[in-house]
Amino acid sequence: MSDYDLSIRGGTVVTASDTVRADVGIRGGRIVAVADRIDGAAREIDASGLLVMPGGIDSHVHLAQPTFGGPKMSDDFETGTRAAIAGGTTTVLPFAMQPRGAGLRAVVNDYHKEADGKAFCDYGFHLIITNPSPSVLGQELPALVEDGYTSFKVFMTYDDMVLNDRELLEVFECARGCRALVMVHAEGYDAIKFMTERLEQAGKTAPYYHGVSRPEIVEREAAHRAISHAELTDVPIMIVHVSGREAMEQIRWAQNRGMKVYGETCPQYIALTADDMKGLNMDESGGKYVCSPPPRDQASQAAIWQGLQAGVFQTFSSDHCPFMDGVDGKRSPKARTSFKWVPNGIPGVETRMAVLWGLGVAQGRIGMNEFVALTSTNHAKMYGLYPKKGSIAPGFDADIVLWDQNRKETIRQELMHGACDYTPYEGLAVTGWPVMTILKGKPVCEEGKILGAPGDGAFLKRGISPYASK
Amino acid sequence: MSDYDLSIRGGTVVTASDTVRADVGIRGGRIVAVADRIDGAAREIDASGLLVMPGGIDSHVHLAQPTFGGPKMSDDFETGTRAAIAGGTTTVLPFAMQPRGAGLRAVVNDYHKEADGKAFCDYGFHLIITNPSPSVLGQELPALVEDGYTSFKVFMTYDDMVLNDRELLEVFECARGCRALVMVHAEGYDAIKFMTERLEQAGKTAPYYHGVSRPEIVEREAAHRAISHAELTDVPIMIVHVSGREAMEQIRWAQNRGMKVYGETCPQYIALTADDMKGLNMDESGGKYVCSPPPRDQASQAAIWQGLQAGVFQTFSSDHCPFMDGVDGKRSPKARTSFKWVPNGIPGVETRMAVLWGLGVAQGRIGMNEFVALTSTNHAKMYGLYPKKGSIAPGFDADIVLWDQNRKETIRQELMHGACDYTPYEGLAVTGWPVMTILKGKPVCEEGKILGAPGDGAFLKRGISPYASK
Amino acid sequence: MSDYDLSIRGGTVVTASDTVRADVGIRGGRIVAVADRIDGAAREIDASGLLVMPGGIDSHVHLAQPTFGGPKMSDDFETGTRAAIAGGTTTVLPFAMQPRGAGLRAVVNDYHKEADGKAFCDYGFHLIITNPSPSVLGQELPALVEDGYTSFKVFMTYDDMVLNDRELLEVFECARGCRALVMVHAEGYDAIKFMTERLEQAGKTAPYYHGVSRPEIVEREAAHRAISHAELTDVPIMIVHVSGREAMEQIRWAQNRGMKVYGETCPQYIALTADDMKGLNMDESGGKYVCSPPPRDQASQAAIWQGLQAGVFQTFSSDHCPFMDGVDGKRSPKARTSFKWVPNGIPGVETRMAVLWGLGVAQGRIGMNEFVALTSTNHAKMYGLYPKKGSIAPGFDADIVLWDQNRKETIRQELMHGACDYTPYEGLAVTGWPVMTILKGKPVCEEGKILGAPGDGAFLKRGISPYASK
Amino acid sequence: MSDYDLSIRGGTVVTASDTVRADVGIRGGRIVAVADRIDGAAREIDASGLLVMPGGIDSHVHLAQPTFGGPKMSDDFETGTRAAIAGGTTTVLPFAMQPRGAGLRAVVNDYHKEADGKAFCDYGFHLIITNPSPSVLGQELPALVEDGYTSFKVFMTYDDMVLNDRELLEVFECARGCRALVMVHAEGYDAIKFMTERLEQAGKTAPYYHGVSRPEIVEREAAHRAISHAELTDVPIMIVHVSGREAMEQIRWAQNRGMKVYGETCPQYIALTADDMKGLNMDESGGKYVCSPPPRDQASQAAIWQGLQAGVFQTFSSDHCPFMDGVDGKRSPKARTSFKWVPNGIPGVETRMAVLWGLGVAQGRIGMNEFVALTSTNHAKMYGLYPKKGSIAPGFDADIVLWDQNRKETIRQELMHGACDYTPYEGLAVTGWPVMTILKGKPVCEEGKILGAPGDGAFLKRGISPYASK
Repeated sequence: MSDYDLSIRGGTVVTASDTVRADVGIRGGRIVAVADRIDGAAREIDASGLLVMPGGIDSHVHLAQPTFGGPKMSDDFETGTRAAIAGGTTTVLPFAMQPRGAGLRAVVNDYHKEADGKAFCDYGFHLIITNPSPSVLGQELPALVEDGYTSFKVFMTYDDMVLNDRELLEVFECARGCRALVMVHAEGYDAIKFMTERLEQAGKTAPYYHGVSRPEIVEREAAHRAISHAELTDVPIMIVHVSGREAMEQIRWAQNRGMKVYGETCPQYIALTADDMKGLNMDESGGKYVCSPPPRDQASQAAIWQGLQAGVFQTFSSDHCPFMDGVDGKRSPKARTSFKWVPNGIPGVETRMAVLWGLGVAQGRIGMNEFVALTSTNHAKMYGLYPKKGSIAPGFDADIVLWDQNRKETIRQELMHGACDYTPYEGLAVTGWPVMTILKGKPVCEEGKILGAPGDGAFLKRGISPYASK
Repeated sequence: MSDYDLSIRGGTVVTASDTVRADVGIRGGRIVAVADRIDGAAREIDASGLLVMPGGIDSHVHLAQPTFGGPKMSDDFETGTRAAIAGGTTTVLPFAMQPRGAGLRAVVNDYHKEADGKAFCDYGFHLIITNPSPSVLGQELPALVEDGYTSFKVFMTYDDMVLNDRELLEVFECARGCRALVMVHAEGYDAIKFMTERLEQAGKTAPYYHGVSRPEIVEREAAHRAISHAELTDVPIMIVHVSGREAMEQIRWAQNRGMKVYGETCPQYIALTADDMKGLNMDESGGKYVCSPPPRDQASQAAIWQGLQAGVFQTFSSDHCPFMDGVDGKRSPKARTSFKWVPNGIPGVETRMAVLWGLGVAQGRIGMNEFVALTSTNHAKMYGLYPKKGSIAPGFDADIVLWDQNRKETIRQELMHGACDYTPYEGLAVTGWPVMTILKGKPVCEEGKILGAPGDGAFLKRGISPYASK
Repeated sequence: MSDYDLSIRGGTVVTASDTVRADVGIRGGRIVAVADRIDGAAREIDASGLLVMPGGIDSHVHLAQPTFGGPKMSDDFETGTRAAIAGGTTTVLPFAMQPRGAGLRAVVNDYHKEADGKAFCDYGFHLIITNPSPSVLGQELPALVEDGYTSFKVFMTYDDMVLNDRELLEVFECARGCRALVMVHAEGYDAIKFMTERLEQAGKTAPYYHGVSRPEIVEREAAHRAISHAELTDVPIMIVHVSGREAMEQIRWAQNRGMKVYGETCPQYIALTADDMKGLNMDESGGKYVCSPPPRDQASQAAIWQGLQAGVFQTFSSDHCPFMDGVDGKRSPKARTSFKWVPNGIPGVETRMAVLWGLGVAQGRIGMNEFVALTSTNHAKMYGLYPKKGSIAPGFDADIVLWDQNRKETIRQELMHGACDYTPYEGLAVTGWPVMTILKGKPVCEEGKILGAPGDGAFLKRGISPYASK
Repeated sequence: MSDYDLSIRGGTVVTASDTVRADVGIRGGRIVAVADRIDGAAREIDASGLLVMPGGIDSHVHLAQPTFGGPKMSDDFETGTRAAIAGGTTTVLPFAMQPRGAGLRAVVNDYHKEADGKAFCDYGFHLIITNPSPSVLGQELPALVEDGYTSFKVFMTYDDMVLNDRELLEVFECARGCRALVMVHAEGYDAIKFMTERLEQAGKTAPYYHGVSRPEIVEREAAHRAISHAELTDVPIMIVHVSGREAMEQIRWAQNRGMKVYGETCPQYIALTADDMKGLNMDESGGKYVCSPPPRDQASQAAIWQGLQAGVFQTFSSDHCPFMDGVDGKRSPKARTSFKWVPNGIPGVETRMAVLWGLGVAQGRIGMNEFVALTSTNHAKMYGLYPKKGSIAPGFDADIVLWDQNRKETIRQELMHGACDYTPYEGLAVTGWPVMTILKGKPVCEEGKILGAPGDGAFLKRGISPYASK
């Protein structure tokens, strides 16, 4: 009998701190050895010339989430996680969203039903709190944290989700008590509403004005407000999907004061700009790039890179939130009347790693260890998945992506594996590409061919984040 | 016939930029000459050894303002302006406050009735906007601005006055359109409410906890928010009664970005600290110092001085808001149940100039020209009273204070001329004191003796502020 | 007999803080009255429609200064002060420069000989210290300060003038002791030398490379170093001719820490850019714009304006340092071999006020009171000339410029009155122009016609600066 | 035949990013496997309950260095490296110092003689450049970099070592060309000299005044200057032994601008303060704590921690520079005449790791992965030793420290293994202690007992730093 079910041989293992020539031995779905030479596995994969990296963890993904009357998200658990593994990602963390008035436990149970048996990769749930009633804060959340739902997300904008300052403070206080990590969507509701009405009054309804309606000021103000609430309640927070210099500088300011304020950014803020939404009438394609916060400009991209290099940001996520480009999505009759009805969100779970490698590592902006930290390790540590997920070392789940750092590829829709009908990165030429994805010791995708099956992925009960309150 | 009704001879004239030995000639209530020698006036005042400065302008004074069921303010127009002239101040700008639901014009008319025939000094009205309805924003405010009510105040806290972000944005936009200057009370309503409830739940109800319930974070956050709204709507704002380093640094940050954000501070932030509210039970005197924002600590006082020296602050006002210390005020039965019922505000219109001179000029922190700018000239310029008020030069109203910079005095209630029964500066020893106040050429107070009469003061229809939107 | 030798009637008097319609009465060369109406003067000047402002004080002017073998400065006291009065300036402060090894008293005596009987306007001397020997620091400087030479200048660059850090510290310490104000030319000698050699080795010798050889980094570093030395020795300093954002931000940083660090900027930093030196061969005109620090770029101009608006800079001087453009100056045979031999400096004493008014007041960047402060009042206060010079009020010398704020003019050499053969502002169209200059009650220039004579100007023994050490 | 010469079993392996339960297999002095279970090694070490970490790398150590007439350093290669391994450190990087006038190659050859056959641990050499002549910069340094001496150190102070700005620029330029990493001792020579003379003149000669003679201003100024020179020459630099907030903020400022400026700090800046030098006469012990930069105050310690947490500092080194406390060292007759003759430096190579663990990890200020990064991995990466040194993974040298995180110990001289007669951390109680040190697979120290021998350590020819110029 072999010691190993599987060995990955001849590759270069990359972790968040180290880069070494080593073989990886796997047994029972877990990594059991990293060694100069591993012989005699039941199956051997030749990784010569390839990088052997932890499978990606995408801690910000929207799947099968209610849209309150808007067009349906194009990805459910099956198609979304199929896209994930095709892109080298082996764990996703979507959101169980509480509609106003609903009980959280029921929401979580329903969301499990959406996922059960369908996922191609592992997954956990964040909780979106839209109704922080006393029973939610006092009973449901503490119990759910104990059950492994150890992070909450709150929104400072969107009609059906926005919390006011009082509610934010109460959720923050609750998070401190039950040691959950709070994720904050930082954009100011009232300012966006105000700007939107002024633009509509001026007849400026094309998708491009989506960006104008929520400028960096609005994100910065909300970031400062969230930071202040966090300082008042003495609780760590993670400000997600930071789009540009203004909000980034607020986070850095807080970090420099010694506060536990973390930051996340996304592919759209290094690869897209507001000009991508430039279609000034509804027949053009601007709507395909509409997401919130919106992409900014070149100077903001430079600021985001600076934040990635200097450690302002801990995680790089997709904020995958896919809608079809057609009349059942971005171009619905209603969406064509104003940017405000264009569904907010773009697909990205499959392209996240290739975009960061291509623009970051391949162009010398970050190193490959930083890549691993930003796409996998830090997510695992931040969200209580460590040391089960997030590295290549004995004891970790054998979630691995084999990466060809010399492969030249052009991102295009025909390569994609999700349900959405377009990719916002169409035409982006990159060097570096995933050639095999392994989930818990099982190859689930190879050269773009899906080998896995719905149900390969399991729910992850997560531990308390070491970055949350002590 | 004499060329001059009155001359002030032998003194040293101090303006916001100059200090010169000169006589001042007055005719018809206005200054007509500043000269090395003015002979032959109908009346001569000997100002030998004295400074001849512009009468103070206190642009932040509350008189006879409704308190929504709380104890009555102790000063009406008569007693409040009597205190003003006794302290060297010849113009006050109190607030015509719109109760929710009321029309603004009616409020203004009613407030005129409060003032008519009662004032010992000149006065104008700011407008407090609590209900920015379309008719208020679209019709009433523009018309009132045309009529000389050229500044608005908005509150980011207080149950009966707080505006939400949407309302703030609309008032700011309105101000841009009609070129009014907006004053902002920057403290975050929800955060204060949240903190207050937590303190009350913990039994921490003594006056001292008033300060704890609204720490600097809360003021800083609101200042940042107001600045962001101002940036979004491209309108200058004045952040009033800044209490400490945190909010001051937000204003400086905005100014360094080139924004037109102005700042005001007050005597309580250089002469009092949170410890003055230290009475931990209701029998002690902590309530006498309860105002909002609350006094902070020594480090914040140092920061406020730094802001005064570096030009972060343009105006030094009293935020005079007097309540009796007795059971009809600070110690009402209700107020004794929790700090939150202790009326917010302290008297200060009479002591403002002496406190700034004593702690500032006499101790070498600021110069006497800066004193004039901070107590008079900048108020006149900021609020559309210039060049009628605010300096000593031909054409200005003959509003003058004769100041003895060598006079040692100890501030104490028996010296005061208002209706309030205490001064929060009791026992403060200062050097420098007003010895005569002249309003439009008429001596109205001399050595603490009131010479003027109710009705000496007139309403001032103010012009557009040169600091408002262009 | 008339009360007044001269009256200026019907104008608008502008001081650093006030703008009033008033007549000005003059007797014995001094202002004796500012009044609504002054009748019966021996001579009346009609200033209707004009601004009546304090004559300019240019506290940074080089006249008849040794050049250590380089081309001679084109202006001596006669031509330089003739240009000054033509531009509205009535006081200049040039530099008595100590050549290495010379005694300071002898230098001062010699410099007086250069000036005696020649000046069209009043003048005082700063002292340039190049050899801070114990006798200079211990005896000569304290004695000279007592005699009215109350400011020193030190250089951090230039072969014949540079002081090392030890010498800077000793001069600073000396200044603290004798309460002199120290002016600092902040550019780093070694870095410039290093860059110059590298450029020359690369054959980059055209005037344009003058700017490349001393980038903003070099000025910023020296500014930081001077500030640190000043902090160590606890002495106020004035950093002169600040050219761009980098050095400006160091000064602001120091000011925000509460340090007494002052700043000066000049016309070349708001009206010229590095591109003006763009002539890439020696036949072109780039050399005409060579001065140190060099003009920067548009972004730096914006930063300088921001510093002017926010009070980072107290004075606006010309750094007038004129050399002919011909072969006896900017295009000498030696100068044509390398930018490093192009004499450093440009003329500007005559155009200083028109440039600041034209680009500043006329374009809405600063107000007219700020203009007066920056061109006159603050110089007087900073350098111990106040209250003799710097304002319009009883007791001040009757140094006055009548300014036509509606006059449109284009700066061109044919309008100039100095000895230099070009103006770097040739072709700059401005609105606002001096139409009459009055020195101690005597009109010395009217509509560009010189009415004064050499010797009208007298030496000014200056007092201790209130901005120097206490 | 066994696959492994040695296995370390049952421990928890800690790297800069990961913490895993794993065995480590070693063969031929190198790590060949990290696996859940490694059986059958020739020798097994039981690490149950212990942490298995990379052996420390101390990149800032002075051994057997000339002292220009001062007392001799107490440690040579033998005693210094014996102390190193006793403290868990397996690689040291001391300095081959060029005396003025000497050729660098000869210095290096001589320094090898000092080390040959004596070292208990591995070592490489930095080069101290005191005489950057054209031949040094043009020939010697490039050749030495090729030979594995890939880092230079320059001094901005000390009589026998200081470089002026021109020399600094030339060394920086040379470093860019040959891709060496430059380490900078940032303190300003002239300012220290100036302060020292003033203190001596005032009779303030006790050791305590060592700190007063070189305040934070002096370090900050030099840091800013070095950063500016690095910006001008476009070369990365490492500012070593940063002592407090002021210099730290300059580094952070540079990093936030995107510059490659790195920082190092040391145990003395988190464990000592200026008060430790408080002995005010020469009989007291203040001299034992004299090092440069000097320890500061509690606020600076807090700033240093903040810099360690936020990533401002990449390395934590000892700056081991030992002198005896007796008359042959700190208390020599000459040293007793003035602080300036007290030899600068304290021992620390043995206590470095225990101090950082005790004050950092054990007290919750940093995590254990950060500890590994700061004491080992980052040094290896920064100085071209990676991936030979600095982690626990296949291919790395088997340099390992077994750490008992529960061991309580009090640092005291009797535990020390170097030649120095005192430790500045005497009496510091810590939790966490090295219990075994393994060098290239050989246990060299166990429970304080030295098992290794002189000559166990070998010279390390280092590669180009990935942090140096590209």
